[in-house]
Amino acid sequence: MSNPNTVYIGKKPVMNYVLACLTLIKGGSEEIVIKARGRSICTAVDVVEVIRNKFMPDLKVKNINIGTEEVKSKESEQTLNVSTIEITLSH
Amino acid sequence: MSNPNTVYIGKKPVMNYVLACLTLIKGGSEEIVIKARGRSICTAVDVVEVIRNKFMPDLKVKNINIGTEEVKSKESEQTLNVSTIEITLSH
Repeated sequence: MSNPNTVYIGKKPVMNYVLACLTLIKGGSEEIVIKARGRSICTAVDVVEVIRNKFMPDLKVKNINIGTEEVKSKESEQTLNVSTIEITLSH
Repeated sequence: MSNPNTVYIGKKPVMNYVLACLTLIKGGSEEIVIKARGRSICTAVDVVEVIRNKFMPDLKVKNINIGTEEVKSKESEQTLNVSTIEITLSH
């Protein structure tokens, strides 16, 4: 689950995650995985596009997977379905 | 550009787009394309996941492409970059 080459996207500014990804790549990772769920999915796509357009044009999107995760709501006993995305980049 | 098998995702509720996709599929389309940009990208993923989980478990995600489009801002002369996603479904 906690792959060292994985960047989890949350609610911080796009550039924070861009820097996290670039640090991993410059640190020698051949492949990095960007994971996000719910409303953060668009941020994940933004992160990949900023990296490719501004920093590393030769970076390749190796694979994109989408899926669903069940999340337990804190207030009620209900489980909610939330969409997920997993983007694998390689260079 | 205006492929009849394409559903463009905007700000309407997820179910509106799910119905649009199901109508295309039931109408005989072997392959449909779901396109979205910016904040609607997460809605596009939600649409695909709802179709697969609730309506057509055998539907396959054939391809996912992400990219960037330039959009001209109405107020200023500036062009903005906006992320895009294109999900191809087949059955």
